[in-house]
Amino acid sequence: MNTLEAIKIRASYRGKYCSTKVPKDQLRLIMQAGLSAPSGCNKQTVSLITVDDESILMKLHKVIKPPIGETAPAMICVLTRKIIAYRDKCYHVQDYSAAIQNMLLAIIELGYQSCWIEGHITDDDHIGEQMAQILHVPDEYKLVAFLPVGIAEEPMKYTKKLPFEQRAWFNGFKEKS
Amino acid sequence: MNTLEAIKIRASYRGKYCSTKVPKDQLRLIMQAGLSAPSGCNKQTVSLITVDDESILMKLHKVIKPPIGETAPAMICVLTRKIIAYRDKCYHVQDYSAAIQNMLLAIIELGYQSCWIEGHITDDDHIGEQMAQILHVPDEYKLVAFLPVGIAEEPMKYTKKLPFEQRAWFNGFKEKS
Repeated sequence: MNTLEAIKIRASYRGKYCSTKVPKDQLRLIMQAGLSAPSGCNKQTVSLITVDDESILMKLHKVIKPPIGETAPAMICVLTRKIIAYRDKCYHVQDYSAAIQNMLLAIIELGYQSCWIEGHITDDDHIGEQMAQILHVPDEYKLVAFLPVGIAEEPMKYTKKLPFEQRAWFNGFKEKS
Repeated sequence: MNTLEAIKIRASYRGKYCSTKVPKDQLRLIMQAGLSAPSGCNKQTVSLITVDDESILMKLHKVIKPPIGETAPAMICVLTRKIIAYRDKCYHVQDYSAAIQNMLLAIIELGYQSCWIEGHITDDDHIGEQMAQILHVPDEYKLVAFLPVGIAEEPMKYTKKLPFEQRAWFNGFKEKS
């Protein structure tokens, strides 16, 4: 698939997934795509744990309330470390966001669907921390997001976006018309 | 180009660019790729200004010290607005990072090179604010990054990264071996 096409057809999939397993070599390709993203001062603050073991998936989904992505046969958990890039500057949010975007595109390329799930698990009920405990993640890492991965069972829905002209201009800011 | 291939060959290019202009329709495709990225609660906090006018490029590069990307025939400036997604949650950093990653891949797909330049212009000397003034950007937007765009004149250099096994695991955290 052409990269521009993958970028265009990608959307956040919140429907049910088929039970068909995602082969480990394909999950590995997706993870490699994530790790290939740039990171501020090359600090490589992102780590990943992919879960495709059914019993561990079940444990994780027990703490994810309300449920989301619970029918997907695999889940990529995104871990971050607040490593200083220089002086007091830290680019860990940028780093994991770029890694997630790479993975979302790789997932599309390989014929699967996904959704960037972050706010749901980093909110005041600390679901991400409970997930990290289940996965034996050391304290220096924070589990900030996860991506369900699988074949979509339902049709894709596209969110409505503002027209190009209201968000992008050439050679200077233009007032909204 | 296959998306996985684009992801793999992308690297931060810091060399000189050829003077060959980037056609406006290709710049528009790159910007569209950026705006196609997901945003937290679909708040679409990212806006873009692409500069390919030589006199404006010259003005911008006058304030970018030390110089970087100054030989590129075009530059995409990334603007963000801190729009609340829900309660006190704001995902503007994630939003612009995903948009930038999409654009970096689109740039590769179209045969150009680029580099995510952020810390250089958001540091204590406020270069981004000076660039925003030149581009008549209203105060509610912050210019946080720019991407030079052009054909590379020099060979690509790849940064060394940690091996997969030190950053990614299946079904639980694994100690570094």
